[in-house]
This record gives sequence, structure tokens and C-alpha cells, in this order.
Amino acid sequence: MIANEIKEKLRAIVGAENVLDSNIDRFGYSYDSSFVPLVPANNPDVVVRPLTTEEVSQVMALANEHGIPVTPRGAASGRTGGSIPLAGGISLCLDRMTKILEFDEKNMMITVEPGVRTVDLYNFCAAKGLFYPPDPASWKFSTIGGNVAENAGGMRAVKYGVTSNYVMGLEVVLADGTVIQTGGKAIKNVTGYNLTQLFTGSEGTLGIITKVLLRLIPMPKARNTLQLMFYSLDDACATIHKMLQSGVVPAAAELMDKMSIQAVARHRKLDIDQAVEACVIIEIDGDNKEELDKQAEQIATIARGFNVAEVRIAQSKQEEEDIWAIRRGLSSAVGAMAPNRLGEDISVPRNEFPEMVRRIRKISEKYNLPIAVYGHAGDGNLHPSVLCDLSNPEEAERVHKAVDEIFAEALAVGGTLSGEHGIGITKRPYTISALGEGGIRVHKAIKQALDPKGILNPGKIW
Amino acid sequence: MIANEIKEKLRAIVGAENVLDSNIDRFGYSYDSSFVPLVPANNPDVVVRPLTTEEVSQVMALANEHGIPVTPRGAASGRTGGSIPLAGGISLCLDRMTKILEFDEKNMMITVEPGVRTVDLYNFCAAKGLFYPPDPASWKFSTIGGNVAENAGGMRAVKYGVTSNYVMGLEVVLADGTVIQTGGKAIKNVTGYNLTQLFTGSEGTLGIITKVLLRLIPMPKARNTLQLMFYSLDDACATIHKMLQSGVVPAAAELMDKMSIQAVARHRKLDIDQAVEACVIIEIDGDNKEELDKQAEQIATIARGFNVAEVRIAQSKQEEEDIWAIRRGLSSAVGAMAPNRLGEDISVPRNEFPEMVRRIRKISEKYNLPIAVYGHAGDGNLHPSVLCDLSNPEEAERVHKAVDEIFAEALAVGGTLSGEHGIGITKRPYTISALGEGGIRVHKAIKQALDPKGILNPGKIW
Repeated sequence: MIANEIKEKLRAIVGAENVLDSNIDRFGYSYDSSFVPLVPANNPDVVVRPLTTEEVSQVMALANEHGIPVTPRGAASGRTGGSIPLAGGISLCLDRMTKILEFDEKNMMITVEPGVRTVDLYNFCAAKGLFYPPDPASWKFSTIGGNVAENAGGMRAVKYGVTSNYVMGLEVVLADGTVIQTGGKAIKNVTGYNLTQLFTGSEGTLGIITKVLLRLIPMPKARNTLQLMFYSLDDACATIHKMLQSGVVPAAAELMDKMSIQAVARHRKLDIDQAVEACVIIEIDGDNKEELDKQAEQIATIARGFNVAEVRIAQSKQEEEDIWAIRRGLSSAVGAMAPNRLGEDISVPRNEFPEMVRRIRKISEKYNLPIAVYGHAGDGNLHPSVLCDLSNPEEAERVHKAVDEIFAEALAVGGTLSGEHGIGITKRPYTISALGEGGIRVHKAIKQALDPKGILNPGKIW
Repeated sequence: MIANEIKEKLRAIVGAENVLDSNIDRFGYSYDSSFVPLVPANNPDVVVRPLTTEEVSQVMALANEHGIPVTPRGAASGRTGGSIPLAGGISLCLDRMTKILEFDEKNMMITVEPGVRTVDLYNFCAAKGLFYPPDPASWKFSTIGGNVAENAGGMRAVKYGVTSNYVMGLEVVLADGTVIQTGGKAIKNVTGYNLTQLFTGSEGTLGIITKVLLRLIPMPKARNTLQLMFYSLDDACATIHKMLQSGVVPAAAELMDKMSIQAVARHRKLDIDQAVEACVIIEIDGDNKEELDKQAEQIATIARGFNVAEVRIAQSKQEEEDIWAIRRGLSSAVGAMAPNRLGEDISVPRNEFPEMVRRIRKISEKYNLPIAVYGHAGDGNLHPSVLCDLSNPEEAERVHKAVDEIFAEALAVGGTLSGEHGIGITKRPYTISALGEGGIRVHKAIKQALDPKGILNPGKIW
């Protein structure tokens, strides 16, 4: 527990109203959007909500002096437990740092504080004709600081890349309170090590991000949305594969298997043919509407070559939204199918996507566990969801083995443990198999170098 | 000096014919393509040319055991002294590791050894319809390992990015001989820290790159090349600026000032109007020739709005090459104008390009030194070349001050010390002003963590 004397110092830094230590507050900051069980051991001793970099710096200096663990937190929308304060100490919540500090229209860049919500950033830029593409599923409540810390992805990654592709520079408060700046507005920049990319995706283990410089791109002027239904998952995969090989780069290419589709159908009372085994949603965008119409027809032709059951090309904004509603409702619809849902986030080389889906189906049969599969087929990032009841110990055992095998198979086809959710707590046991002993040693050496007392987000990644 | 006993061990590892220690060989490996003076102190004690990762690992283990400095080297085409063995020891030359290990057409990726020449990689991929865009000026002799170590750029960076944008994974031999793998073929990958980007651009100070996994893109089907002559540098800058703001993303946008143009004209016996103050070469590419022709006309119209003296749109392959010959001949033509040429490589926010050019001209006047300015205007990366005679101590003093001011002004407009050449030896004195004390401390901490004995490329970056 943190001594009252230290709590007093924290109150002096951020103001008494921004230091929370009631039991209910501590509980409120003990969990995130992952399936890590709720346990009192994960309560922070105190929640601290700074407003400025200077306050963050003072909090870190104090914590470092006393060896107090600090777990940074944005909106706690993470899926792997990254913001859960495993070792107690301070939950450092950056939700008050919500300023848009500079909008540089000429260089098409924006500087924001970490607590700005992703959707607010998107809307702010869109109103000025500029586009911030990364769109993690949680973008309506996730914060930019969290997006950077986890290197969040999203559906548009296939064409536009992930958060790290937009981060030009950072302000970071180190474990001892030192404030550093990385990167900058120069597009080409090879001065020193690429610290910007080292901190991006480091899951709060190397420093606290207090400012983010992001590049923006022009907003595409037109968009087409297609929904393709297939009687076979293989045909769906083959269509996506051939589309990508033909040079069409979609803004999104999402795939859902039958279990996912039927879950949404039940949830949203949609009538979807039981014979349909896979649904693919493709969005293409660009500046030339005619060109896009041609591309849509090209995709439809490819799909017809693979025995497509239904091709629907949205003819209105409303129809676009109807199509996307299926995909957007997926996570909660699948989650409602069983007491527990273990949603994973593996990522494989793009051409291994169909093979990985086949291997997941084998695992599902082997362990007699329903596994709904959906994901960003365009970039090889899958979200298999194991539907289960973890209160049944025998079933929990099977789930555990199935998840182990999913990770092993992902690595076996040249993939990795996480495409966009991070490692956090939930994938920690598998890190060694992905990074190897030498790789882990390098991670630990860097961590030790930047956070010698190990106070920053302890218990994560490895 | 390295003891004979250790040389024997090196011979046992890589073969006697691949361990060079004659005076002439040691001298041959003491310099690169920078303007670092030739001094005997920069001779390595021994040159070692391994063929395999295993050999590199054994050499590093031996060097680490005995605290022997190791300076990795590709083609020594670097412009900042990165491969100069400042502290003697081993010059580890990777020029025998030239294998293309895997070409993965389906995932559009290629795995190569570090000694593969950039041009050979480009040609290999081009023959298969794929495009490896990074094109540092030295691409006809530079190696991929060096490109990755320095994060090399080039003319196409404005549209296609630099080397780091193509590096998906690396095999790295650490200071103690440990071999690690980073990244992989999964497009989305957030498993652990981004070590791939940490090693990319680390200038041989953190590890030896022994394998490089690169992504490729489809080769654009068509291309247009434009040459625009202006009576004023400001008009040239304004044209580029307006073109970029209008949403045209050229594959290259190069600018040369009058001194640069006249240098090439003399060198290549071209007849260029003395009233011309700036030349801009723009290349646009894509899959649709009609679209490109429209874009070329759009650019020409913008240029006419800024009083352009001449617009030339290449009508043939030959004419394209004639236009590019002006830019390609630039470095040697400018170099021939004075006994010494200090070519710099600053990078500024894109909209500050014209302002930076103005500031360089003021510095040129203040110190009465000719400074030819050319560079990648499209991405804010300038190469001011101070033409001088360093054997004149009074002039050398002025040159020193002028270069100091160029760096100070680049930082003042929000830019950085190096866009694509790296820091190496020549920019080391300025690193502190760019990265700040905290930033340098982080660099040193990471270096210490990965190379505790400081044997890897000592004396570079800071």
C-alpha cells in the first residue's frame, strides 16, 4: 500500500480531486476490456489523473523515488489487460489530457494529448478534409495514447496501415520523470535511433506518452462497399486472395464465418440463408468514382469465378451502413453466444489466411469447442473467438489447450501472436515462443535500461 | 593491435583468405564516401569477411570476449563516416553475403543477405513485376545491409517512403554473438517492442544485420517525367508546394538551384539559359497513362501560374533519361567545382523547404561561401553543398561556422540533422542539439543494454 505521506504528495501535484483511493474507485480501475478475471489483487492503491506533462513528470519522479508501480491507462478498452495494475501502485489515468494542441494544415499533421478519443480526432480532421485512418473496433471510446501504446490497428489497415504508420513524433515521460521528445515534422529523419517506433507499441512499459504528433492524409473523395456471400469459406478466402493478387488494394476486406454470421443474424434479427458459410465485406475508396465502379465490378467478377452466392454493391449511404452493421455488431453478437468468449488476435502472412482458418476449424473439432472466426482477411489478421463456459473446469482445460494450439499454429505458418491487441497479460505465456530466448533477452535489456526499477506497467509482455 | 593468436582464431572462423591485415588492405578499409579526412588512425587492425550468420556470430563472440571494436561495412558508400573503423579493431565486411534467400511472390516479400547490392535487388524484383522503391543515390553499388543500417532514402521517398518502410523483419547478430530474429511476414505485428525499426537506422551500433526481409509492391505500369525551369527559386518552391497541396503525390520532386544547374551544364556541356535560377524535375507514376497525362498537364498549369520559364514533358524513354541525367550528374558536377565539397543532408517540415532555402542563401552570403542547394523538395530533404578549400585555415573556419548555422537553422524550423545519410562521425557534434540531453541519455542506455562493452561501431552518432 502507498503511504499517506505519498498520497499527500500526489494530491499536491495533481490536485486532491484527481487522486482517487476509495474502494469503489480502486475497483473501477482494476479491469479493462479483456477477459482477465476480476480479482481484488488487481486494484491499484490509488488512481492519479494528471492534466499536464509537468504533472506526469512529477508523479513519475515520485513513484520512481519510492519504487511504486505505475500502470498507465487511457479508456481501458484494451483486449489483453495492458492497463490492469497487476502490482497495485498507481493507475495513471490520462483521460484529462484531451487537448488538440496544434493542427498544421500545411504539413498535414496534428499534435494531440494522449486522452483525445480516436473518434474525436477522426472527426476533427475529417471536418478539415483530412483523414486519420486507424480505426480500432473501440475507436468510439479508445484514446490516442492507448492506440499508440498498443499500436492499434483496425479494418482500414489493409490499405492504410496501423497507428504506428501515422506517428511522426512523441513526447514521453520516462520512468524517472525525464521528459523527452522523439521524431518530428521532418518526413525523412534518421537522426539517432527510431525511438518513436520503439515507444509505439511498447504497452506502457518504457514510458508515459504525453504528446503525439500524427501525420494525416487527404480524405478519399469516393467509396464503394460490397457484400459477398459464399457457400464455402474456401471460396471466400480464394476471392480475397485473387483480388489482392490482381492489384486491387481495398480500404477494408473483412471475412466472417458461418458461426459469426448466424450470431449477428440472431442478434440483429436479420434473415440470412443457412447455406451461407462465409460473408466478405469489402470497401474500396479513392478519388475517382468511375474508377471505383470499375473496381467493384472487377471484384464481383472474381467472386463469380468462385461460386459466389450473392453480390451486393451498396447503392446508397444507407445500404453501406446496413452492410457494415453486420460487421460492427459482430463482437457483441458473438460474445452473447456463450458465458465466456476468448477473442484472439493472431496475424499470419497474407497468403496463409485460408490455411490458418482451416487449422482453426480442425482445432475446434478436436476440442469440441465452437470457435467463431472473423477478421481482417486483407492483411492476414484473424480474430478467432472460442465460445465456452469457463466455470466448467473440464471445459476450461480444453479451452486452454485449444488456445495454445491456435498460437502454435499461427507461429507455425510464419505468423505472430498479436496483430493489433498487444500482448499485455493474456498472451504473456506465449511470448517466449514468438520472440525466442535471445529476443526476450533484448526486450528485458531495453526495459532495464529505460526503467531500472521496473516500475512501469510491471507484469506485462513477457 | 590485435594479437596474432586472435587473428588465427578469426582465420579459423572465416578462412585465412578472408582475413586481411596487410597495410594496403587496412588502408583500403579506413575510409568511405564521406569527407572524413584520411588518417592512419582510422585503419582497422584487420578486415574480416564472413560468409554466413554463423561466422558473424563466432566473430562477434570472439570480439566481445576480448573487447575488440567491430565496425560493420557494406559498400562503404555512406556519406557520414559510418563504416570508418575509428577505434581500429575489426572491419567486418559483409560483401560476401550476397544471397537472395527467398522470393515469396504470393506475399510479395523477399529475404536477402546484407551484401546484396541495391540495384541487383531492384532488378531481380523488377524482372518479376515487383517494385523495391528505395533508391539512394549510391544504389548502383550500395548494399541492402548498409541501406538498412543507415535507413537510406532516395528520390522516390516522397511517394514511396524510405528503406525502413519496406523492412518487415531482420536477423541480427548481437554484440555477444547471439542471433535474434525480429518481425516477420505478418503484416500486422505487435508482439513485443518494434526491434525491427530499432535496428533499422542504428548505424551498426546495436548489432550486425545478417538477413533482411523486405516487402515489395506492384511495379507501376506507367510514368511521366517533367522538367520545369524557373527564373526564381521562390517560384520553383511555390510550384512544388502548390502541387503537393493539390493532392498530386509525385514519385519524385527534385529541385536544383542555379549553382547546381550551372555545375551540371559545365560538366555535361549542356546549354542552359543563365537566367534560369532553378530547375525542378518531377516524376509521376501509376497504372493509368491517361490519368498521368492529365496530372502532368495539371502540374504544368500550376507551374505557369508561377511564371515558369520552360516546361518540358518527356515524350520518350530517351527524353526521360536526358532529363534525369541532369539530376544524376549533380553530385559529381558540384563536387568538381572546388577542392572540397561538404555535402549536407538536412530535412525540414515540407512547408519549410522554401524558408530553409532562403536561410541557406543568407548563410552563403554571410560567410562568403558558395553553397549549391539541391534536394528532394517533395519531402523537405535538402542537400546543401558548401564548396570550399579546406587547406586554407581561414576558409575552413568560415566553413565550420556556416555548417553549424545550417544545422541550427534546420532545427529552428522544426527539422533535423539528417534525412537519409545518418549521423555517423560527421554530424556527431550536433546530435545533442537535435535530441536533447534526455534523448541522448536514452540512446546511451539502449546502447549500453545491447552492447555493454561498447565494441560495436564505437565513436558514432553521439
